[in-house]
Parts: sequence; structure tokens; C-alpha cells
Amino acid sequence: MVQSGPSCVYALEQIHGLVNASHLLHLSMNVPDSPFPVTLPMIGQMGSFERPSASLGDPLDLYVHGYVSGRMFQGARTGAVPVCVSVAHLDGLVLSLSAFNSSYNYRSAVLFGHASLVTDAEEKLYALELITDSVVPGRWAQSRQPPTSAELQSTSVLRVKVASGSFKARDGETGEDKHDMENEQARDSIWAGVVPVHQVFGEAVPSSYNRVKETPAYITDYAKELTKDNAEYAVNAIKAAKKE
Amino acid sequence: MVQSGPSCVYALEQIHGLVNASHLLHLSMNVPDSPFPVTLPMIGQMGSFERPSASLGDPLDLYVHGYVSGRMFQGARTGAVPVCVSVAHLDGLVLSLSAFNSSYNYRSAVLFGHASLVTDAEEKLYALELITDSVVPGRWAQSRQPPTSAELQSTSVLRVKVASGSFKARDGETGEDKHDMENEQARDSIWAGVVPVHQVFGEAVPSSYNRVKETPAYITDYAKELTKDNAEYAVNAIKAAKKE
Repeated sequence: MVQSGPSCVYALEQIHGLVNASHLLHLSMNVPDSPFPVTLPMIGQMGSFERPSASLGDPLDLYVHGYVSGRMFQGARTGAVPVCVSVAHLDGLVLSLSAFNSSYNYRSAVLFGHASLVTDAEEKLYALELITDSVVPGRWAQSRQPPTSAELQSTSVLRVKVASGSFKARDGETGEDKHDMENEQARDSIWAGVVPVHQVFGEAVPSSYNRVKETPAYITDYAKELTKDNAEYAVNAIKAAKKE
Repeated sequence: MVQSGPSCVYALEQIHGLVNASHLLHLSMNVPDSPFPVTLPMIGQMGSFERPSASLGDPLDLYVHGYVSGRMFQGARTGAVPVCVSVAHLDGLVLSLSAFNSSYNYRSAVLFGHASLVTDAEEKLYALELITDSVVPGRWAQSRQPPTSAELQSTSVLRVKVASGSFKARDGETGEDKHDMENEQARDSIWAGVVPVHQVFGEAVPSSYNRVKETPAYITDYAKELTKDNAEYAVNAIKAAKKE
């Protein structure tokens, strides 16, 4: 568990980088009068409104957007709500001789912090640009501007002040117990290896009413690069020295 | 919000089907002496130990496996712990003329229930086979059998008795407000459409010590079919009548 602070730039970079590379994150909070925490899939991005030039190794806030019911926002309106944010990337199915040494190659991060509703108009605009550009970099500037006041009013953004976080990952090939490596029958009959898994951002499909003939390069290039990077990561993870 | 029960077979099928199609799920619970819920990425599968032939439309339990610290299992050992389980599949980046009508195509489900540690030896074996086969169908029978007693003892499985759940999805092309559809400048200059997103299960990489020359068909076929189904879903979702 990493406390945020200047002494752990590397851990912050890992956590923030993974959160920013995640198109979906899972945000959990407790709600009044229910024994269950509630988890919601949301869009989010790390940033600093006070210091927009801050880097991934700096302490940052998490800005999130998604459907949150009035009941859940009640707490965020009146004060800060304790939340946990979780992201996980599946990079490979790790199939060892024994089911018990089988695993996943993956990268995951959690953040713990306090969520509040963003009420300042400038900060909300900053966060909406940040979040929109996390879907496709540059999309905010390329979409219809400026936002209408009705749009700004009807859109809710949460700022999570991060208290702590952690990063966990596994890569490498399969691992085995000694007794399985010495089990000739198992070695001769059971395939051991890794199935790499990655996310593909495919060929953009124009909408029925779209008038722009060619899909802009900022969209197609991003989709191609992201797909290539994902595929390379999953395959390279298998070759990496085992780490879990 | 769907209460589990025989009157909502369709909703149960949707929720259970999505959970079972998710190689990772996010499980949240509260832990003693912390204001924050804790979310963990885990492997899980719906099933019924009492009635293994139960179908996806029947009420089912969720069996999960993953690293859970002793502190977290404390509650599950002594009684049932309220949990929320969340899965989400990103199917497309929905890029409307305005950032505010932009969205994702996605499918998501949450389950609320009570988690307990599985202590019965037969039920644990049932769950471990279920969970192993959720990674690659048939892998349990193809891996080294039987499990050792040390393996069984060191592996923890949670059973979640589901109290309620819900399913949420968006598909279709982009949507717009009337004023944007009438905005000739926006229509002429901004590309509107969807970038389909799907998960690829790639070419299996044998481990350095693997002796089985060909990757077995139950692995390669599964990877190919899953990838094909994922790709088709993401593209077909764009053509579907818009639903959110």
C-alpha cells in the first residue's frame, strides 16, 4: 500500500498511468441505509486543476464522470464521501500444469480517497476536457464548442482527493511446484503456456448522419497505436522475468 | 434493480451471462476500522452446488477466487459479509458531435449479496473446477489431477449468496440534440461515429519447459471463438437500434 507523496514517484507513475490507460474504472462507495457498498463503472482521469502541468509522478486528483443517482450524490454534495476506485487489465491466461499454479497476467491498481461534487465552473470545464480527451486524445477541441450552459448544468463530475493507493501486477510465463516439474506424466501430457489477451480499438464506423467523409487521423491513429501497444504489452509480458 | 427470483428469468440470464463472460470481476466489501470500501479484482463464476445442472436463468450463487487478505476474510469466516460485484465490458467509443452526447457502448452488471468462505470440501472442489473452467473451458480435466490436499487447504473460495442485481447496457450509433443536428457548421466539420472495442485472446505462447508440441484445440479454438464473438458483438452493437 503506497501513501501518496513525493517519496514514491515511481509508484504514483504506475498507478496514475494505469488509471489513465483504463477506459473504464469501478468506483465503490457506501450509500445510506444499505449494508452493501455500491460499485459503478465510470470514466475517469487523473489531473490537477491547481497545477495542470503536473506529471504522472506527482500527487494528482481523480476526476470521474458517470451515471450516479441522486441518492448517491447526496453525500458528495454535502461533504466528502470515502470511495475506492479499482482498475484491472487482463494481459494473459497463465495455464500451468496444475490448476493451482495457474493465474492471469494482469495489471491492477486501487485508489482510496474522498469524493466531492465539483461545483466550480472552471474546474468542471477543466475536468470535462480531461475526461473527454481520455476517450480519444484531442476530441474535446474537435467536438462542438462551446458547451451550452444546460449541458454544463446537467453534467456531474466528482473529484476524488486520493488518500492512498496500490499497484499490483503479474507477468512472465507459467510457474510450477517442484513436484509437478518432476511429474513426467504431467509434463508429457499437459500443455503449459500463456494465452495473451489485449483490447482492440477497431475500425471506426461513421454514423448514419455523419458528413465528414474520412475518419480524422487523430481518431484512427489513436485506435491503431493503442491496439498495437496493448498487443505488444501482452506478448512482452510473457517474456518478462516472472513477477507476481 | 432486479430481485432474483423465477419471475425474472431474462434479467437473470443477462446478468449471469455477463458475469460468466467476464474473465475479471471487481468485488467490493467493507473492512473493519476503515472508512473506505475495498475493491479487489477476482475470478468468478455463477453456479449452483446443490443443483449443478441449473441454467443461467435460475437463481445461482457466485463463486469467487482471488487474493484476499486475512483481515478481509475475517468477516467471511465468522459470517456473511455484504459485498458488491461489478463487471463491465467496453464495446465502443461513441463520438457524438457534442462531447456531452458522447458515450460508450458497454454492458455492465452488478450483484449485491453476502459472501462466506466455502468450508465444505466437496463444494470447494466443485467451485474450483467451475472457476478453472471459466478461464478456459475444459482446463480443469486437462490439468494435473487430483489436486493435492496442500493445494486445497491453501486455496480460499468465497460463495456469494446473491440478494439482488442489475444489468445496464448501451448500444447503437451516436445520438445528438436537435440543435446540434441543425448546426450546419458542426455537421460539416465534426466526425460522428463509433470506434468498436473488443478483447482479443491471441496466439498461445508455450512455456520454456512445455513438452506438448501442439497447443491443444480446446485452448486455440476457445481463444479464436471468443475473439470472433467479441469482435462481432462490438460491430453489431453499433448497428443495433440505439438503447441506453
